[in-house]
Amino acid sequence: MAIKLIGFPQSPFTLGVVLTLNELGLPFELDPVTDIKTIKTEDFLANKHPLVPVLYDGDFVIHESLAICRYLVSKYQNDANVLIPDDLNKSSIVEQYISYEISYYFPPLQKIIYQEMYNRRNGRPVDEAVVKQALEDIGKVLDIYEKVLEGKDYLSGEYSLADLLHIACAQFIYASTAHSDIFEKRLNVKRWIANLRNRDAFKKTYA
Amino acid sequence: MAIKLIGFPQSPFTLGVVLTLNELGLPFELDPVTDIKTIKTEDFLANKHPLVPVLYDGDFVIHESLAICRYLVSKYQNDANVLIPDDLNKSSIVEQYISYEISYYFPPLQKIIYQEMYNRRNGRPVDEAVVKQALEDIGKVLDIYEKVLEGKDYLSGEYSLADLLHIACAQFIYASTAHSDIFEKRLNVKRWIANLRNRDAFKKTYA
Repeated sequence: MAIKLIGFPQSPFTLGVVLTLNELGLPFELDPVTDIKTIKTEDFLANKHPLVPVLYDGDFVIHESLAICRYLVSKYQNDANVLIPDDLNKSSIVEQYISYEISYYFPPLQKIIYQEMYNRRNGRPVDEAVVKQALEDIGKVLDIYEKVLEGKDYLSGEYSLADLLHIACAQFIYASTAHSDIFEKRLNVKRWIANLRNRDAFKKTYA
Repeated sequence: MAIKLIGFPQSPFTLGVVLTLNELGLPFELDPVTDIKTIKTEDFLANKHPLVPVLYDGDFVIHESLAICRYLVSKYQNDANVLIPDDLNKSSIVEQYISYEISYYFPPLQKIIYQEMYNRRNGRPVDEAVVKQALEDIGKVLDIYEKVLEGKDYLSGEYSLADLLHIACAQFIYASTAHSDIFEKRLNVKRWIANLRNRDAFKKTYA
């Protein structure tokens, strides 16, 4: 039975799952939610799932994007497309950088994206003080990444799920804001982002 | 070589690691950081780690509490103390609830704890509007937990790392605020919290 994914195509969470599916070379059907009101309708709540993205793999249903990514990796990765290494010490370092993404990287970028994309798109004023603080915060985080990435193509050396989870927010910053210098002015970070955007799965996802 | 943990003993992140060590029955040495200024000193930065908690297991060093917990579980769990099941579908549901904790449960509780514990302790005013909004937010989340826990002792049926990660913040609410009714007035949630506080590892951690 085919894999089916329900989600907002523009959400960084859905994009993380799509990138994972594409890295693993898995065919899937995307059932896009285009309006947040959709997931509040009685029909959706009764027949689909109140939390998106949600993935159907045959009879198995799973939601929460990171749980979905982990499920797909555990079930479908092979030697040609390792996203979480088998070796425990190596996989633990990957987990460390997954936590960086959740705790330090995503929160300030989410604020910038919310202000610069959603507020602008919906004709609401941009809170410049929030953007300024978030740019300072992400700057400190990317200074640490700049050191971590010294002499390395990816966070833990080899490409992993940790790297994958970082690119959707970065792509929003490049495509929809004037702040891509936060990545471009840090040479190791700039090289890392270029590596991520140069992957086949990235190109397929954003085609 | 003994396991060594460096962290703030009062931090919910450190407590999550200590609970995991105790659930797994592992002896360890806690090197407590008692003042946030400590981790900014040159000696600490040079010889320990700028991000706490950090765990040393022989030569292997790992930080970020959830990455540490996952490492300990993968390396040391056995049939008598399973925190992440081997079965992929079961472990994926555990991962789903770990994501609930990160995304929905922790953020409002963190705000309440910050206001009610840290601000009070440091003689700063409590922002009652922030507390009110956070109580509303956590209420909606716990309404979902109330349904999830219907007829079950733990989130995914059997006790897991997902349950473990929820108790440190709940314990702060019980011990240091007047808001324990957010748990107590929801009967399934109340029963779940009682199950968690009744575990040997909890009693040992909070002794």
